Amino acid sequence: MSALGIFIWELLGTGTLILLGTGVVANVVLRKNLGNNAGFLFVTFGWAFGVFTGASIAAPSGAHLNPAVTLGLAIAGKTPWEDVPIYVAGQMVGAIIGAVLCWATYKLQFDDHPEPENTLGVFSTGPQIRSYGWNLVTEIIGTFVLVAWILLSPTATAGEAGVPEFGNSALGYAGVSFVVLVIGISLGGPTGYAINPARDLGPRIAYALLLPIRGKRDGDWGYSWVPVVGPLAGGALAALLYLAVHNLT
Amino acid sequence: MSALGIFIWELLGTGTLILLGTGVVANVVLRKNLGNNAGFLFVTFGWAFGVFTGASIAAPSGAHLNPAVTLGLAIAGKTPWEDVPIYVAGQMVGAIIGAVLCWATYKLQFDDHPEPENTLGVFSTGPQIRSYGWNLVTEIIGTFVLVAWILLSPTATAGEAGVPEFGNSALGYAGVSFVVLVIGISLGGPTGYAINPARDLGPRIAYALLLPIRGKRDGDWGYSWVPVVGPLAGGALAALLYLAVHNLT
Amino acid sequence: MSALGIFIWELLGTGTLILLGTGVVANVVLRKNLGNNAGFLFVTFGWAFGVFTGASIAAPSGAHLNPAVTLGLAIAGKTPWEDVPIYVAGQMVGAIIGAVLCWATYKLQFDDHPEPENTLGVFSTGPQIRSYGWNLVTEIIGTFVLVAWILLSPTATAGEAGVPEFGNSALGYAGVSFVVLVIGISLGGPTGYAINPARDLGPRIAYALLLPIRGKRDGDWGYSWVPVVGPLAGGALAALLYLAVHNLT
Amino acid sequence: MSALGIFIWELLGTGTLILLGTGVVANVVLRKNLGNNAGFLFVTFGWAFGVFTGASIAAPSGAHLNPAVTLGLAIAGKTPWEDVPIYVAGQMVGAIIGAVLCWATYKLQFDDHPEPENTLGVFSTGPQIRSYGWNLVTEIIGTFVLVAWILLSPTATAGEAGVPEFGNSALGYAGVSFVVLVIGISLGGPTGYAINPARDLGPRIAYALLLPIRGKRDGDWGYSWVPVVGPLAGGALAALLYLAVHNLT
Repeated sequence: MSALGIFIWELLGTGTLILLGTGVVANVVLRKNLGNNAGFLFVTFGWAFGVFTGASIAAPSGAHLNPAVTLGLAIAGKTPWEDVPIYVAGQMVGAIIGAVLCWATYKLQFDDHPEPENTLGVFSTGPQIRSYGWNLVTEIIGTFVLVAWILLSPTATAGEAGVPEFGNSALGYAGVSFVVLVIGISLGGPTGYAINPARDLGPRIAYALLLPIRGKRDGDWGYSWVPVVGPLAGGALAALLYLAVHNLT
Repeated sequence: MSALGIFIWELLGTGTLILLGTGVVANVVLRKNLGNNAGFLFVTFGWAFGVFTGASIAAPSGAHLNPAVTLGLAIAGKTPWEDVPIYVAGQMVGAIIGAVLCWATYKLQFDDHPEPENTLGVFSTGPQIRSYGWNLVTEIIGTFVLVAWILLSPTATAGEAGVPEFGNSALGYAGVSFVVLVIGISLGGPTGYAINPARDLGPRIAYALLLPIRGKRDGDWGYSWVPVVGPLAGGALAALLYLAVHNLT
Repeated sequence: MSALGIFIWELLGTGTLILLGTGVVANVVLRKNLGNNAGFLFVTFGWAFGVFTGASIAAPSGAHLNPAVTLGLAIAGKTPWEDVPIYVAGQMVGAIIGAVLCWATYKLQFDDHPEPENTLGVFSTGPQIRSYGWNLVTEIIGTFVLVAWILLSPTATAGEAGVPEFGNSALGYAGVSFVVLVIGISLGGPTGYAINPARDLGPRIAYALLLPIRGKRDGDWGYSWVPVVGPLAGGALAALLYLAVHNLT
Repeated sequence: MSALGIFIWELLGTGTLILLGTGVVANVVLRKNLGNNAGFLFVTFGWAFGVFTGASIAAPSGAHLNPAVTLGLAIAGKTPWEDVPIYVAGQMVGAIIGAVLCWATYKLQFDDHPEPENTLGVFSTGPQIRSYGWNLVTEIIGTFVLVAWILLSPTATAGEAGVPEFGNSALGYAGVSFVVLVIGISLGGPTGYAINPARDLGPRIAYALLLPIRGKRDGDWGYSWVPVVGPLAGGALAALLYLAVHNLT
């Protein structure tokens, strides 16, 4: 696929994912929404089927939507290293656009919010108990499960670069969305399961630099490296596991 | 497919969708129901699998069930323009019949309801914060995601007029129902995600003109154009995106 | 398929369905359960995936599991009339066995229950507002949606007697379970959606005649004909719709 | 498949299952988690899609992930008896590793927990009402449904040793995860549905012998045989049913 194609499809898919993912948090957090206080199962469904929607749109480029997936696939030899920056660029631009569309969807609710200093959580993750080392462990394990599943489950291993064959049917990407669902449900409690540097950093940039949200605070940049480094490390470790298992069996 | 066939299948599919969609709201809103106060996740599941049920019935006509989908497919060159009025007619008649069946299902609960002036919400959407411009933005973005997914995801783009190939298996329409699920979860908070002019206008007409509901108020006609114009604009924009992406890649 | 085969597969499938369906109600209603008070979405998931489990076991006989489905398929010309009593016999015996297994699973919880006169609801349905005529309407509409979907959706109409082709894949029966899910969510509020004479009458017989439940009351036989007659009427009407649509298109 | 291959794939799949399954309980039970108090539906989704994730990773070995499944498949003649110890070894080692990874994910939350003596429930099951005989009945019935479904549903019966054909598509294991979902929802109330000796015993060993959890109590060894014996008996009974049905039909 051409560099332009990769960029466009990753932008469209990641933009859709981030619009839907940050959207569910806005629905739950901001009052005067039908989904206000709808609970964490509701949040995990939003992110999971946001992945389904974005990934089945981005099928032509293999639907990475996540620099940690791109890194894992590159280490595993399934994505050419020279394509990696193009994937990541599309993902980051898409993530920023998705966050802006979330803001537009919930503009009236943001204006109405009584605690405007607490809206960063709509866009980016933060830990329930702050301790960078263990927060990093949590993000590494969550992303490890995601990328290991992509590399080891049969459909993915049958595929070539970028696992585009997931998209051959209307339901092809339901599998990865179920995996993202359970990662949120089972591993998302402590840090909000970024498990994707673009998912966290793109909306953080949009929040801090672009969006005219009344009374907003800073982007909590002190924590911002954790949901970037953790997922990249988890994706790399999963690729090493994949290579080891491949040699052993 | 013959005009009669399109009309019948769209009527059957949209009638099923609206019966099930307005039904879940009745179950949640009206007391003396097992689903009373069951929450917004419950509501989004009702609409999503209402789409699954109605769409897999209406597979022979391509299961549009939604004038905004029909408009988007026409602009994208996938549905002949002369079929558009037939699709919309079947959708509108079906939507009105579905709303009447919902009323019959919950007749005893409507009679029992202590706030009879607040039952319009069972049938049609309304905004949590009224501001027509931003309400329109929310409806445009929600419908844009729906129609963009239908046009860009691999199964749909592989198909010809009206994407009937979705229906080739018992599960073919699960994909679009997952997309409707996440649109409700992630973008449905501010306006109740009409994302379909027939879904909103048909039941509004049934409520205001046909149904003998005790103490009902008017159909809130001042807002009624938003869930018609917004979805049509969102569907048209998605079709333009599809044509642009098609040219670029 | 031989009469013995039909009987065995329908017994196994309906027994599994009823064990899992009455089981979720026991889990929610009886205290000292992990699922106590887990809500109506939880209940609808139990019945829906109970259908998935039972139907994918009973695939060899076409997985009717429901006399209203058998009747509809017979009227539509898809099941021979002479097989109907065998189907229904297997379904009724299976339903009674399933209810007994539910009781064994929750034996300690039944013994602990502080309101032993209120345990009929674990086994059989009852209306939230008692009015036999409208209760019947609700049961007719719910079953009509189920049987119309089975007859009109593409996989079912492609099949021959008893739609066994649903079971060709591990996921083939997910579609019908999604339909049962949404019928519960959207139409189940007023009467608890029996939509199946065997589902309601079998456990009612088990409760009233077989199970040694402390302090149990009678089987509410005054209502018991509604969840038998309503579903049969709904299934028959759906078959007439199917024949009419078949002639028109 | 080689003994090493069986061991590795069962270890990877069971490790993933146990990490995700014990993870959801940690998320719900331990405060300062986004999923704290998220309810039993949330818990059942975590275990169900943990099965999906682990099973689709372990597809090459047939994805047993459970000694009761291995035993049932051996009795049914689908898995060679000499492979049984290898399967069980991989499952037990994987279960222990999964429990350790769960502890690492939630390390900060374990440290913060105000009732450190009540954390065994994160790892292993216990009865809501203690009575070993009836607890055993509950575990037997739950596992019976699981193994009967694996043996009797069409995909499984079409397969040969270890039903590896489940894994032929990205969604192949969704079926078994739906069955585990409904077993939890419908039969999991009284004992927490171990339905898998490795799922219960592995994390119990990790908790009691390995993990440095502050203030932990003993492993409740008095109950620990129930979730081992019950599932094995249920799996064996399901295999006998399978053989009987095979002879009759």
